Amino acid sequence: MNTLASAQTRTAARTQGTVRIVGTGLLGTSIGLALRELGVDVVLANRSPSALALAVDYGAGRVASPDDAPALIVVAVSPDVTAALVAEELEAFPEAIVTDVASVKLELLNTLRERGVDLDRYVGSHPMAGRERGGAIMARADLFIGRPWVISTDATPQAQARVEALALDVQATPVRLSAAEHDQSVALVSHLPQVVSSLLAARLTGNEAALRLAGQGLRDTTRIAASDPELWVQILSANHKPVASLLSELRDDLNDVLAALENPDAAGAQRQIASTLAAGNRGAASIPGKHGSAELFTTIIVAIDDKPGELARLLTEIGELGINLEDMRMEHSPGAQVGFVEIAVLPSVAEHATTDLIERGWSLV
Amino acid sequence: MNTLASAQTRTAARTQGTVRIVGTGLLGTSIGLALRELGVDVVLANRSPSALALAVDYGAGRVASPDDAPALIVVAVSPDVTAALVAEELEAFPEAIVTDVASVKLELLNTLRERGVDLDRYVGSHPMAGRERGGAIMARADLFIGRPWVISTDATPQAQARVEALALDVQATPVRLSAAEHDQSVALVSHLPQVVSSLLAARLTGNEAALRLAGQGLRDTTRIAASDPELWVQILSANHKPVASLLSELRDDLNDVLAALENPDAAGAQRQIASTLAAGNRGAASIPGKHGSAELFTTIIVAIDDKPGELARLLTEIGELGINLEDMRMEHSPGAQVGFVEIAVLPSVAEHATTDLIERGWSLV
Repeated sequence: MNTLASAQTRTAARTQGTVRIVGTGLLGTSIGLALRELGVDVVLANRSPSALALAVDYGAGRVASPDDAPALIVVAVSPDVTAALVAEELEAFPEAIVTDVASVKLELLNTLRERGVDLDRYVGSHPMAGRERGGAIMARADLFIGRPWVISTDATPQAQARVEALALDVQATPVRLSAAEHDQSVALVSHLPQVVSSLLAARLTGNEAALRLAGQGLRDTTRIAASDPELWVQILSANHKPVASLLSELRDDLNDVLAALENPDAAGAQRQIASTLAAGNRGAASIPGKHGSAELFTTIIVAIDDKPGELARLLTEIGELGINLEDMRMEHSPGAQVGFVEIAVLPSVAEHATTDLIERGWSLV
Repeated sequence: MNTLASAQTRTAARTQGTVRIVGTGLLGTSIGLALRELGVDVVLANRSPSALALAVDYGAGRVASPDDAPALIVVAVSPDVTAALVAEELEAFPEAIVTDVASVKLELLNTLRERGVDLDRYVGSHPMAGRERGGAIMARADLFIGRPWVISTDATPQAQARVEALALDVQATPVRLSAAEHDQSVALVSHLPQVVSSLLAARLTGNEAALRLAGQGLRDTTRIAASDPELWVQILSANHKPVASLLSELRDDLNDVLAALENPDAAGAQRQIASTLAAGNRGAASIPGKHGSAELFTTIIVAIDDKPGELARLLTEIGELGINLEDMRMEHSPGAQVGFVEIAVLPSVAEHATTDLIERGWSLV
């Protein structure tokens, strides 16, 4: 990417002064890259000299020195050492605002309270970004674009504003929540699905014959079960109360449907099974569209031959028709000669797009 | 699609004689379409005259008449009426082999046994195909290509062979399992994930604020929670024993991790949480590759600008490089100006593909 060109077309940075980033993994390095594109002075610190050198090589900032006078410090280390490093940074830089990016906020805030640190200068925050693979090597300046960045309302308004400026500079969408509200929310949308997916996937081991029949439903429901256990033990432990509460509610529902399945001829059993499935329908429908709004896209499914160039031909024609794809997915049957491409478009262009594609000879399903 | 051309390039049908299809929904109509492409004589029956006329219009076969002498009958109706119709067909056509396509096999077989029907001419089977939307309007001749088609080994070898010929004619992959083995397998790979996804999605209702933070993990784990409750009540009730057994095992695991989350400082709690996550890792890794084999594809992630034509340009260049995509997925952040396209290629071409794409100026991540 031409970073100079993108810098020229952007507005000036909202972030003022030097930003110190402690920890140069995926998040820390990506924040550095995004800020450097805006010309912000970024200094980097990492206990591992080689990891630090790598992030500097990538252009995420310069090596921190004792003379730095950072205005804002971002602690971007693993959850279990975040509290200690936030406390250290607050003490070492008494003029700076300090934030962190850990995925759980309340336990951290309570730990810092117990330590008696200067909470007027601390803002918990959580950029909801990341990829399945971590590390500086996966870092990218555009990691946060359009992603929610939760900013804790437990902080002072002045401190919150500084982190909001940072979030806006990296093109994230600031979302203000208290630490408790944040933890409740991520327990539901992230931590509970992780536990449930792990529990489901755990049942698969040793069933190779049955897994020959596996389809897309099983793959989708168990994809996040491949997540890093070490990181997730930390996250789940730090947010154990909201997660346990939700998991306990799910367990009660599970017991109800299990009782019905164990005796499906009993009075009310069929209704119990149906109501579980219907509740699932309602829940699935309550997830907002892919772009974080309630707006839904229209999906068009096109059949294409499984040979090089066919997908390109389809996409070329979609480009010629001036249709912007909001999302796209290719579905490919085992050994099939035909694939299906699901394209998502704005509802306003769906009808036009459908007609045009059929006119050009594509098979829509 | 040019059905004449595809018929010409195919081998002759293995299926001999007239095939009678009872029920012209997605599966019945698709089987008819695929057999007609091979020139097989197909007659169609449906209690709804309009649904029957639609399937005939699509070219799935001709309207059944009292003079038909079918060699093979496919009962493709909803699970709750399958047993009655299989029994009727066996009685009405004493020379024919009868199969069905219901998703649960053992209860059906037991019901037919109790009715004292001629089981020498009956073969339970289950084509593992289907789309989220049903009905003749979604039917397609290529629906079964490369998909597993389970054929019950409870039937006579001669009868099994006839359904195997049908499965091969529609380009499915025959898998021989007893009715009990089949039901155990689908309980694991299909029915348990359905219940778990519904239970998870059911917790989302009434949490609009939290759902603003929803990401791809939540969407993937709850996608199948949108399935049709009416159909699934029938499936889960018919296969309740294996599903209840697996769900009970999952509940026990859930109780273990719940106890650990309720008291994460207790001895062994951290290990319990970690072992749940690690078991999930192992289970997720045991699912074979997308194409039903253990072969894994290499994923390449390319960053593209979010504007019409960019994806087409990428795919055009991939086509020019002669690379066949095995799978493809577009990831699009909320409001982002940049999207990511994940493409899956054979490992043997991955290095070449990566080098070529970088040479042409694409940003790989």
